[in-house]
Amino acid sequence: MTPESGRRSPTVSGLRAAEIRTAALALFAERGYAATTMADIGAAVGMRGPSLYKHVSSKQELLAQIMTGTMEDLLRSHRNAVTGCEDTVERLRRAAEAHVRFHARNRLEAFVGTGEIRSLEEPHRAHVLRLRADYEHAFRNLLTEGVEAGRFRITSVKLTSYAILDLGMGVSVWYRENGDLAEDQVVYQYGDFALQLAGVR
Amino acid sequence: MTPESGRRSPTVSGLRAAEIRTAALALFAERGYAATTMADIGAAVGMRGPSLYKHVSSKQELLAQIMTGTMEDLLRSHRNAVTGCEDTVERLRRAAEAHVRFHARNRLEAFVGTGEIRSLEEPHRAHVLRLRADYEHAFRNLLTEGVEAGRFRITSVKLTSYAILDLGMGVSVWYRENGDLAEDQVVYQYGDFALQLAGVR
Repeated sequence: MTPESGRRSPTVSGLRAAEIRTAALALFAERGYAATTMADIGAAVGMRGPSLYKHVSSKQELLAQIMTGTMEDLLRSHRNAVTGCEDTVERLRRAAEAHVRFHARNRLEAFVGTGEIRSLEEPHRAHVLRLRADYEHAFRNLLTEGVEAGRFRITSVKLTSYAILDLGMGVSVWYRENGDLAEDQVVYQYGDFALQLAGVR
Repeated sequence: MTPESGRRSPTVSGLRAAEIRTAALALFAERGYAATTMADIGAAVGMRGPSLYKHVSSKQELLAQIMTGTMEDLLRSHRNAVTGCEDTVERLRRAAEAHVRFHARNRLEAFVGTGEIRSLEEPHRAHVLRLRADYEHAFRNLLTEGVEAGRFRITSVKLTSYAILDLGMGVSVWYRENGDLAEDQVVYQYGDFALQLAGVR
């Protein structure tokens, strides 16, 4: 299909939808979900009501897409990080590094994810909480594996998984691409922190 | 002064102001600063415009009071925790415990502090950022002390201070008084985590 064919290809429509989500994310982060209107989002991408609503039905749908999409991406990045790696210490390191890298690269998503879970309606809210629980359990399983293998020294698996996850959220708050710390520097250091928290022997 | 004296004592006025701040904090946490109006805050404490404005001049002033007050309380709790303690490892443990306890007890303040720094105008914003930098430096100094005394094994003092502070913010997000983890359990475990992050020998 050539650009002259006059009919929008699904790809172009998909790009337009992605552009709308990106604009919505920036506005939710900047002024909050409740204070953002569909008109604001339309203005940010140069679209008026009818053409905007061709791509997305509501502000709530946009929030749900952003929050669900973020959790799905995070879960995928976790699976990619640990797949094919057998050593339990190395698995935790890779999982923690992927966690921190994701949060350094998706700061707005993390900020909106933490701040606007209050604005997410059902059934989206339950779905996102389910995905978060899955993600937390993946870390808990890694830690339990390591304890059983005698590689980690942990008082509370649950609190240790929380602490490792807390580190990622922290990075999303303070990390800046143009700051004095390179992404890799932060990622590798925080990977070490996760192993320290797990009391690697 | 008796209640019948007809004149409001400064204490009553102070209580009223505190009540207004508490209501504002709850609303900022629930729906965000931008989506909260002075009328909402007045309604929450049963006051109309003129009597409300006798206590507070604007929504921005309320946000500034909340954010500045929180940081001053946090800095005070830190000083109280470390004062009179000479041992560097014990000082870090107490500082980390105070940090986590404060965040477990002041969850709304922490949530609004992270989420609404975007809404704080100058000169309040610079003031709050200054207080945060002071707080972070207090941890950095504790860590540097321990490194110089040969008690901590740390690659980056800056990243280690960030990581310890991240833990408190995390707790403010997931901790619940009625959850299955007692406050002390979380506080002591996170105190240990801070020492692990500092690589206590």
